[in-house]
Amino acid sequence: MYVSNMVFVAGLSHLLKKPRTMKKLINKPEDFVRESLAGMAVAHADLIQMNVDPTFVYRADAPVPGKVAIISGGGSGHEPMHAGFVGKGMLDAACPGEVFTSPTPDQMLAAAKQVDGGAGILYIVKNYSGDVMNFEMATELAHSEGIRVLNILIDDDVAVKDSLYTQGRRGVGTTVLAEKICGAAAEQGYNLSQIADLCRRVNLHGRSMGIALSSCTVPAKGTPTFTLSDRQMEIGIGIHGEPGRKRIEVKSADEITEILSQSIIEDDGYGRTVREWDENKADWVDVELIDPPLQTGDRLLAFVNGMGGTPVSELYLVYRKLAEICEQRGLQIVRNLIGPYMTSLEMQGCSITLLKLDDEMMRLWDAPVNTPSWRWGI
Amino acid sequence: MYVSNMVFVAGLSHLLKKPRTMKKLINKPEDFVRESLAGMAVAHADLIQMNVDPTFVYRADAPVPGKVAIISGGGSGHEPMHAGFVGKGMLDAACPGEVFTSPTPDQMLAAAKQVDGGAGILYIVKNYSGDVMNFEMATELAHSEGIRVLNILIDDDVAVKDSLYTQGRRGVGTTVLAEKICGAAAEQGYNLSQIADLCRRVNLHGRSMGIALSSCTVPAKGTPTFTLSDRQMEIGIGIHGEPGRKRIEVKSADEITEILSQSIIEDDGYGRTVREWDENKADWVDVELIDPPLQTGDRLLAFVNGMGGTPVSELYLVYRKLAEICEQRGLQIVRNLIGPYMTSLEMQGCSITLLKLDDEMMRLWDAPVNTPSWRWGI
Repeated sequence: MYVSNMVFVAGLSHLLKKPRTMKKLINKPEDFVRESLAGMAVAHADLIQMNVDPTFVYRADAPVPGKVAIISGGGSGHEPMHAGFVGKGMLDAACPGEVFTSPTPDQMLAAAKQVDGGAGILYIVKNYSGDVMNFEMATELAHSEGIRVLNILIDDDVAVKDSLYTQGRRGVGTTVLAEKICGAAAEQGYNLSQIADLCRRVNLHGRSMGIALSSCTVPAKGTPTFTLSDRQMEIGIGIHGEPGRKRIEVKSADEITEILSQSIIEDDGYGRTVREWDENKADWVDVELIDPPLQTGDRLLAFVNGMGGTPVSELYLVYRKLAEICEQRGLQIVRNLIGPYMTSLEMQGCSITLLKLDDEMMRLWDAPVNTPSWRWGI
Repeated sequence: MYVSNMVFVAGLSHLLKKPRTMKKLINKPEDFVRESLAGMAVAHADLIQMNVDPTFVYRADAPVPGKVAIISGGGSGHEPMHAGFVGKGMLDAACPGEVFTSPTPDQMLAAAKQVDGGAGILYIVKNYSGDVMNFEMATELAHSEGIRVLNILIDDDVAVKDSLYTQGRRGVGTTVLAEKICGAAAEQGYNLSQIADLCRRVNLHGRSMGIALSSCTVPAKGTPTFTLSDRQMEIGIGIHGEPGRKRIEVKSADEITEILSQSIIEDDGYGRTVREWDENKADWVDVELIDPPLQTGDRLLAFVNGMGGTPVSELYLVYRKLAEICEQRGLQIVRNLIGPYMTSLEMQGCSITLLKLDDEMMRLWDAPVNTPSWRWGI
């Protein structure tokens, strides 16, 4: 008896420790980003081109003379963001880093040179320490080469005030909306400081929070970024799998939607500061951001984003409850976006973003766009 | 020692047997389909409306007088197909069954009555025994009420000749392409028999095959439809998780793409028969289908479809290799579609569809479309 039990235990323990094969459609982990981007570039050669070294993706017709160019970037693994949003009416270039790793200043500078149409460049930067530092460095390098660059931070995640990779809030879903709205403004001839003001306003009026039902595996690492038991979910998850507010028992879609939307709607918009380049002072300055609270009658864009491993059927189920909650609170959803726009590899879960709209933002939202992953009106 | 080992074993065995919580954004399993559709209908009220009993989704502006109406349907769990494709330039109505379960003839008949613009109706039917039987019954019921209906079968899956739920090949990715192309033809004033001929031609020229890296869980069942070990994948998977050709060790994306595309390109297009309604004979007749082989110089639409749990970054990686293979074989990809259009709940994996295009199909493919999940040119 004693012996046979030992064998059983040993056998089980072996089973549990056996390394898992990554369940991904990939070749070598180190080629994941390059090969995925190459596929996108081949598929959409009419819209985008890819520069291999340093790596960035840019509009096939760039530079567009006289137009402000919009550039974003960040770690890979969030596709279609950002490369899938390069094209008419949205981004002029995207700089992808390795998975969940910031791109480098040389990528950002090279992209700026490639798409500079003479009217200046806006870097849209998600608030993660690496991205912030490198985009600031790229901004200074661009200035030294005579290219006018401003950069605006997106820090819309109400889940946490500081986190693993950030000072202050993280930048999440509002980034996608800012890229669409600012891209349309650039297309319509707005100048650089107008677009920077608009982007800051979108960030101020946009708030997000997400949940994860499962983890994700960075190809180069080969094991899940974090572990969740079969019965747990992570409330306030970051897009790199970094911890959020708390880990709780799995709840129903309606309960999850209640938790997320309540956190977003009732966020107090604490005053916070971000660094921006001041053209008059030719130096970095601290800008204080104060979120205006949501009020009855406000018009909203409601964005239900899929994390990569969750099908759209579930996102619509979340949207159904979100629409109900907003209606009960006297908030009017006038536009929506539902789908996997900013993913975390194959993570299961979703995030909700609510953006308070004004007439100008709504008009720009509706403007034509033609990118690999977002196309309408063209 | 003996006792403590027993405890350890008992503890482990308890852990292993503990029922898993479904990692889905859902409420009650029995409400999944209705609540997801309701969310879609609320989100896209300008495009679609939902009829609750019997359940179907239809174009908000239906019936369109003088236009042939296109209706499709099938089990739920494949979203955005079909409800997400209802709108101008694609479907007039979609009839969703419960998850992986055929809709009923009364849904199909009610949808036909709702969208009948007087020019007749085409049912696009995926080849699964339940769907075929029920759409045939609905066709007869519609005729008895004086509505002209034809139905065309899609049976494009080259993985298996017969399968768990079919006599003959299963209907998969080509369905999406047929809905787009026939929807455009209807919008442009084609008559019913012209559209039926076109749909049959699309089916003849389209071939697909898929693979699964993971299983999926039907909400009402609560446990995975099938099991794959951490190291296995299923080649030739059906969209309901039904078995394909074989189960093998997980391979690289390039190897998977080789296997799928070779199977598709070299398929011998064995002669097969399907039942269609013959208007002259006023009866069902057997129609023989003979696939024309692919030849050097053929122009293709290449469709890389995500199964629901796989992010678009991985689909682009597959597309990259597919484009390379087609080029090597002298096949010219002139259009592509990449994304999760026909899913199997949260299954990880993909399918490839190659459709040989002619000028007419290409023109119809490019035509404007405005549905919840597919929009361009409008």
